[in-house]
Amino acid sequence: MKRSVFYLSDQTGLTAELLGQTLLSQFESIELVTQTLPYIDNEQKVLEIVALINRNAQENNARPIVFSTIVQPELKQLLHQSQAVLFDLFEQFIAPLEQAFGVHSSHRVGKQHSSANKEAYDHRIQAVNYSLNTDDGLSIKQYAKADIILLGVSRSGKTPTALYLAMQFGLYAANYPITEDDLEHYELPSWAEQFKDKLFGLKIDAQRLHEIRTERRAHSPYASLKQCQFEVTQINKLYQQEAIPTIDTTCRSIEEIATKIIDKTELRR
Amino acid sequence: MKRSVFYLSDQTGLTAELLGQTLLSQFESIELVTQTLPYIDNEQKVLEIVALINRNAQENNARPIVFSTIVQPELKQLLHQSQAVLFDLFEQFIAPLEQAFGVHSSHRVGKQHSSANKEAYDHRIQAVNYSLNTDDGLSIKQYAKADIILLGVSRSGKTPTALYLAMQFGLYAANYPITEDDLEHYELPSWAEQFKDKLFGLKIDAQRLHEIRTERRAHSPYASLKQCQFEVTQINKLYQQEAIPTIDTTCRSIEEIATKIIDKTELRR
Repeated sequence: MKRSVFYLSDQTGLTAELLGQTLLSQFESIELVTQTLPYIDNEQKVLEIVALINRNAQENNARPIVFSTIVQPELKQLLHQSQAVLFDLFEQFIAPLEQAFGVHSSHRVGKQHSSANKEAYDHRIQAVNYSLNTDDGLSIKQYAKADIILLGVSRSGKTPTALYLAMQFGLYAANYPITEDDLEHYELPSWAEQFKDKLFGLKIDAQRLHEIRTERRAHSPYASLKQCQFEVTQINKLYQQEAIPTIDTTCRSIEEIATKIIDKTELRR
Repeated sequence: MKRSVFYLSDQTGLTAELLGQTLLSQFESIELVTQTLPYIDNEQKVLEIVALINRNAQENNARPIVFSTIVQPELKQLLHQSQAVLFDLFEQFIAPLEQAFGVHSSHRVGKQHSSANKEAYDHRIQAVNYSLNTDDGLSIKQYAKADIILLGVSRSGKTPTALYLAMQFGLYAANYPITEDDLEHYELPSWAEQFKDKLFGLKIDAQRLHEIRTERRAHSPYASLKQCQFEVTQINKLYQQEAIPTIDTTCRSIEEIATKIIDKTELRR
């Protein structure tokens, strides 16, 4: 049983997608075919999509599911004439919000990406640049500016986590690889004492680390289960000894790792 | 007039945040103070939040706005007893989805990040690594694997765009800086002919480029308005001459740039 899902937006479509994915994850038994159609901002485009939806309904003998964040009332009206099961996010929520605030909404397209956000936006770009410049132990001299410094063994997820913290939340996130040398001596690198309150440790299961490293360098000593077990055991002891807060990345998405880190620290999203 | 907004979730809170931000961007006249409270997954945490909400309502003499993606019915019920104006995303949408699909939802927490997504997740990490390895003209020998190769002058937004395409959509996005040398000869670099169908050009307004470069290296020839105007004029001619599709990044967020690029190409999100 296959059902078609369309995410429609007059903007990027990211909001419709994310809400739809969240809701649909509650229906595992349904096989879904999803498609995102962004920048639907005029009558002609909506009419084409209505035709697409109706064709799809006929072919599959089932009404497609549509999540829409289209703002303009005249475009929404056209959409309502399709055969879709329509989830109109603005319709559901704007009226009660207007009532709560006691004002009318602007009903204008693309407000979320307007220049009002320019400062926040520039900050995010600077944060991404900072994370790139301080990736994998580069440029320790910039650590005074860091919001957080992620520690972990090679391939424990430091780089994507740091980049996500920067891109999504505008945090200055550096990352530093803990090497065999550090681990043999149960010692943090010498720069670390000064920035103790910024350190955050990533943990990972040895078996999973072995799999990840094997994909990169199969049959190498670096990827061997034994080496992974050694590094994981040692670094976990080091975290404990130095009272560094940690998170296990093993079965978590980047989004989860990043938001859990923020939740466990004093950082603000 | 200040209103408090809380984003509540038993997971990351990203869905509640994004939907809330999208909706609230329609109410520019209201000054908002927002707070995200993720991983609210037991009764005690909900009761603490209900107390926080009620205190806030009393202090501000206005009911706080709450966007919630909490799944568990018994936790939602507690939340409903608060003084918030509550937007319960699951309540609004799950029942009609159940009806459309003819099945009950699983009502289980954290399905979105379950291991079913492991393959997609690994692919995203690989894409981020690819984008880092091919950042700023590195590792041209890996271009055969690219989904897209972004071109642009220095500081036109290539790196954050490539990383976002990788992180959000799992695309292998390389980026290559077009230098003064290339521009003086109106020529693409020699590797480009072979990958013509993967090229995508980033444009930027000369004045904006001047501002961005000035922040980086003030009063340098590199940042001068004259130099920026030269590079921008030349690269735009080069794009046109070579029939390379382009997007203007000047007043756009990374999300917009990335989704517009996907929309203009044959790439799939």
